[in-house]
Amino acid sequence: MYSFASDYSEGAHPRILDYMKKSNLEQNAGYGSDIHSNRARDYIRGIIADPNAEIQFTSGGTQANLLVISSFLRPHQAVIAADTGHIFTNETGAIEATGHKIISVPSKEGKLTLEAIKQGLDIYSTETRPQPKMVYISNSTEFGTVYTKAELTAISNLCREKGLYLFLDGARLGSALTSRINDLSLKDIADLTDVFYIGGTKNGAYLGEAIVITRDDLKEDFRYLLKQKGAMLSKGFLLGIQFEALFEDNLFFELAEHANKMAEQVTEVLKELGYKFFAEPCSNQIFPILPNDLIKKLSEEFAFYTLGKVDDNSSVIRLVTSWATSQESIDKLIGFFRKNS
Amino acid sequence: MYSFASDYSEGAHPRILDYMKKSNLEQNAGYGSDIHSNRARDYIRGIIADPNAEIQFTSGGTQANLLVISSFLRPHQAVIAADTGHIFTNETGAIEATGHKIISVPSKEGKLTLEAIKQGLDIYSTETRPQPKMVYISNSTEFGTVYTKAELTAISNLCREKGLYLFLDGARLGSALTSRINDLSLKDIADLTDVFYIGGTKNGAYLGEAIVITRDDLKEDFRYLLKQKGAMLSKGFLLGIQFEALFEDNLFFELAEHANKMAEQVTEVLKELGYKFFAEPCSNQIFPILPNDLIKKLSEEFAFYTLGKVDDNSSVIRLVTSWATSQESIDKLIGFFRKNS
Amino acid sequence: MYSFASDYSEGAHPRILDYMKKSNLEQNAGYGSDIHSNRARDYIRGIIADPNAEIQFTSGGTQANLLVISSFLRPHQAVIAADTGHIFTNETGAIEATGHKIISVPSKEGKLTLEAIKQGLDIYSTETRPQPKMVYISNSTEFGTVYTKAELTAISNLCREKGLYLFLDGARLGSALTSRINDLSLKDIADLTDVFYIGGTKNGAYLGEAIVITRDDLKEDFRYLLKQKGAMLSKGFLLGIQFEALFEDNLFFELAEHANKMAEQVTEVLKELGYKFFAEPCSNQIFPILPNDLIKKLSEEFAFYTLGKVDDNSSVIRLVTSWATSQESIDKLIGFFRKNS
Amino acid sequence: MYSFASDYSEGAHPRILDYMKKSNLEQNAGYGSDIHSNRARDYIRGIIADPNAEIQFTSGGTQANLLVISSFLRPHQAVIAADTGHIFTNETGAIEATGHKIISVPSKEGKLTLEAIKQGLDIYSTETRPQPKMVYISNSTEFGTVYTKAELTAISNLCREKGLYLFLDGARLGSALTSRINDLSLKDIADLTDVFYIGGTKNGAYLGEAIVITRDDLKEDFRYLLKQKGAMLSKGFLLGIQFEALFEDNLFFELAEHANKMAEQVTEVLKELGYKFFAEPCSNQIFPILPNDLIKKLSEEFAFYTLGKVDDNSSVIRLVTSWATSQESIDKLIGFFRKNS
Repeated sequence: MYSFASDYSEGAHPRILDYMKKSNLEQNAGYGSDIHSNRARDYIRGIIADPNAEIQFTSGGTQANLLVISSFLRPHQAVIAADTGHIFTNETGAIEATGHKIISVPSKEGKLTLEAIKQGLDIYSTETRPQPKMVYISNSTEFGTVYTKAELTAISNLCREKGLYLFLDGARLGSALTSRINDLSLKDIADLTDVFYIGGTKNGAYLGEAIVITRDDLKEDFRYLLKQKGAMLSKGFLLGIQFEALFEDNLFFELAEHANKMAEQVTEVLKELGYKFFAEPCSNQIFPILPNDLIKKLSEEFAFYTLGKVDDNSSVIRLVTSWATSQESIDKLIGFFRKNS
Repeated sequence: MYSFASDYSEGAHPRILDYMKKSNLEQNAGYGSDIHSNRARDYIRGIIADPNAEIQFTSGGTQANLLVISSFLRPHQAVIAADTGHIFTNETGAIEATGHKIISVPSKEGKLTLEAIKQGLDIYSTETRPQPKMVYISNSTEFGTVYTKAELTAISNLCREKGLYLFLDGARLGSALTSRINDLSLKDIADLTDVFYIGGTKNGAYLGEAIVITRDDLKEDFRYLLKQKGAMLSKGFLLGIQFEALFEDNLFFELAEHANKMAEQVTEVLKELGYKFFAEPCSNQIFPILPNDLIKKLSEEFAFYTLGKVDDNSSVIRLVTSWATSQESIDKLIGFFRKNS
Repeated sequence: MYSFASDYSEGAHPRILDYMKKSNLEQNAGYGSDIHSNRARDYIRGIIADPNAEIQFTSGGTQANLLVISSFLRPHQAVIAADTGHIFTNETGAIEATGHKIISVPSKEGKLTLEAIKQGLDIYSTETRPQPKMVYISNSTEFGTVYTKAELTAISNLCREKGLYLFLDGARLGSALTSRINDLSLKDIADLTDVFYIGGTKNGAYLGEAIVITRDDLKEDFRYLLKQKGAMLSKGFLLGIQFEALFEDNLFFELAEHANKMAEQVTEVLKELGYKFFAEPCSNQIFPILPNDLIKKLSEEFAFYTLGKVDDNSSVIRLVTSWATSQESIDKLIGFFRKNS
Repeated sequence: MYSFASDYSEGAHPRILDYMKKSNLEQNAGYGSDIHSNRARDYIRGIIADPNAEIQFTSGGTQANLLVISSFLRPHQAVIAADTGHIFTNETGAIEATGHKIISVPSKEGKLTLEAIKQGLDIYSTETRPQPKMVYISNSTEFGTVYTKAELTAISNLCREKGLYLFLDGARLGSALTSRINDLSLKDIADLTDVFYIGGTKNGAYLGEAIVITRDDLKEDFRYLLKQKGAMLSKGFLLGIQFEALFEDNLFFELAEHANKMAEQVTEVLKELGYKFFAEPCSNQIFPILPNDLIKKLSEEFAFYTLGKVDDNSSVIRLVTSWATSQESIDKLIGFFRKNS
């Protein structure tokens, strides 16, 4: 049964596998200080035009999130996040396990608003509550939505005015930056945030997130944290090689764009058939609202997640495409919807 | 310059790469619940003859250590380890970062003795000190030594008598079990400890350690910890595939034996040339004591670590072989020693 | 200016001071193992008819909360609490600092409902979220309300059915148990919960909360935690002496009843004058809704907290009475209201 | 049986009790922001001639230690301490429980030496080990010894050169500063360290340590930590009143001097009788080496701790005097030694 359940079902893009094979018997330095990792760092530094950015690779998103948050906050400080944010809903208390409270505030289709951040700051303003010191956002969000340049700039300005670090979880940053409605560049992301990461795992790599720290006073000793949290791989070059392949030329963006295009075809047909969406689709995750009996039938041919009821007759499902989604599988999905609607 | 500095300089054994390639476009379940991981689990369960062993894969040794220790201990409990143990000397305080003290006791060539454990228990016996509840050993040790069946049985018996969990760090377990002086089987390891792990990273895998929990009351909810500490990979099948390849037939043991044999050749020549060793060599790490000028010359042709001075004229170095060490490189190294001694 | 802002403005009840003076030059054992602490333990064990209850004294409520929660939960486990609960709103992230998430659920006038607990269990039911393992309630609550025997029994039954520990924060337990609407005894509290504490600080002691653990498997090694968290006083007898004085005869209940009676007089007059309350008053904290200009005038003669606006013209304030509140000060307050309404 | 086992067997100096009684029915602000605490702060700031010192009161030494260390260190940083230091031997892993390793180095009669600190820095110098960032010393030490001005200056200079915070545990600072061999003033302590505390619990108070932070960049938000760790008492004025009494005039120093004088009389007699000491006595804790049969006889009339064997016939014991030790009890003790030697 074909799965639209996630963007991490397949292995790695063939070019990545080739690079791994080609370098397999090289002797490389350990712990991420090898030439592949350094080359990947240089590619990324070039794109964001910041030769001093601190870049470290880690194996997954939860690890990246807990590393960044626990490295930069003092014990009494907290991070503001949308109540739909991955750190709040999907990481088994990873952030709290490092001692920090997540101040959850209402989100708008997965996005954090200025009003919500200000509300968090208002309530958490005395020494009897943890002190907000960081804002966490994800782009694209857990509902597939993306931030516009205006929105991210406004959040960035508020954070700088209030002395808050701005941290962007980019597990699906490729998909965000190649969204049809996106107007942000990777350089904008670097300029407007203090730290962010570029997700490889969900965009063609076997595993790997590139954490990019642009704010000078946060760079110090970050590698100690990597080591302490078990995030520094002996064969760190495995991460370096993958990001080298992704950023040597345009592969990272090509793969993300492919995933978005695949989702877009499905979106268009579903709209044509009159279905609504939980949030306006614009990246590789779409959330159509479908009749329950259609969902039942769909589940006999495809794998996907059902998120919850909308009313007695219909529910929201999540369909996810990836770098590996074939036109053939999209055609089958579209065919299913046309036939059964 | 050829490196004998570590056993994690190269990528993965070609058969592993082949398996990765073969399964690359399969759609697999996420988070380690895929068929490859399950097959690997079954292979290992078969070898240790324990169909109920809880087995989870993680990406590295520090991660495995902090997961096991923080999962099983209550906040006031501590782990007894040799003062040369990896968790005490080489993990940037990873264990303490989870809240637990390491009670370090004197080691004998990297091995923990009954006397040392008892000494730890004696000193840490009141409520003003943390309560010892676990014993940590590594096999092979940080000095390349291995435990005999008699030694491990004695430690196991003491632990069971005193109500201590016994945890064996097997980052280099392959090398230990194929040592010329080894008399332990993998099944013995499983029987005598409560939890241990089988190192893939240093024995032919890109990354991966298989944590094996045999004691029933420690199995519960271990996956929650994996997720919380950022150790559960989205594409967990990457670890499963590698262990599948290592344990489907005898590859794991063959690779380790190869590494040992390579080291043995060097050992024999060094002994023949009259050099002493810091600890009697028996695995893939050897620690010869060499004249400083010979070390200097050696460093012009090979990479390796110098551990420290023995006297004014000589020092201990570490030479490490691996699954990837070629006979050719060993011949060159041996040639060097013969020529320069 | 007379303060109705808190029940911890004054020192200790004179009888407590007398006991301190009387025993001042005695030589007592340290760390809470003295005869006064033991006598206090025996008094409490007698009242709850549980000779095996584990009882330890600590200096304050936040300390008691973090001790209990961090002692009993494993790293991946969380505590369910009302979103108005003291641990969620008023302890600077003390619980999260020990690594545990608080699952906050909607409260009803400060009380937790079965529905809210079940809602928490429903959402937190997979390994991608922390595992609920404890329910935290406070009695009287942060809004001065109290649990009935039926309510507490229902929560207790649900907890036992679901394998959740039930923890009752009794910082104001005296006030709850002497409320005019209370139908619970201290023994009931002990029977229906797994652990609770009896607040001294807000009921006549200088400082001190008596943590009572009734569930056998939670008793082990609790004193290690006390010591580790800096909660074990060298002169632990200072806490023992105070609880000895409070429980030797009925003083603990007399003081709480006095505080309640003082508040009741104010409540009656405010009701007579037509004012509403944020929650039906029944203990030593009352929350009247008053016109803003009356609040302004009141603040010129008395100290108290204003909690927030109800509409454009009125706000909720908190008035707190204590063992030390005099009839004279109540008369003045009542006089103020009569004169200005 | 009279006890020389500790300096925390009795309650509080009568003047402190008087102050408590006098202010008992005052209404004071909570959480340490009352006038008594502020007055005590001003007295201490005056003595150390630092009007900007941040001063917070806490209830005990372990609490003070864990607060200071966890507040100032980042997650990967460690504290260097003597292997006899209270935080290493006597606090049930309180520091590790906040995530930080204690780098224990050899001590000289309880004192830390420059050589030992440098040795710690040498070994802990790479990213595979925690990063030393603080030095912890206690004065007087756990063996009753005291630092000279020259010694403390040398340590302070080394710390400043190496970028290490210097933290002085002054649980027995009174005894140190009134030692016959002391040449340090309280102002010297403040000038030479970054943070220290003044112990009340072991010098006449019921409970209380005054934490004094002199280094500007460590002052920020310290009260958040106090609250989070359960160290901020509702009735914080209880601590303020006691320090007010101790520092309003010379009481703090008088009480410590009394304790020292009492110990000195015992020392003189023991020396006269030919006994040796484990460390040269100079404060209120003395460690004579006595024949085992004499120790046995002594234990029938007095309480004290035996630390360990020196040889087959003799052991070290600890005798502690305090502000409450009477001349009569010293006379009895001296009488015992004269009669039995």
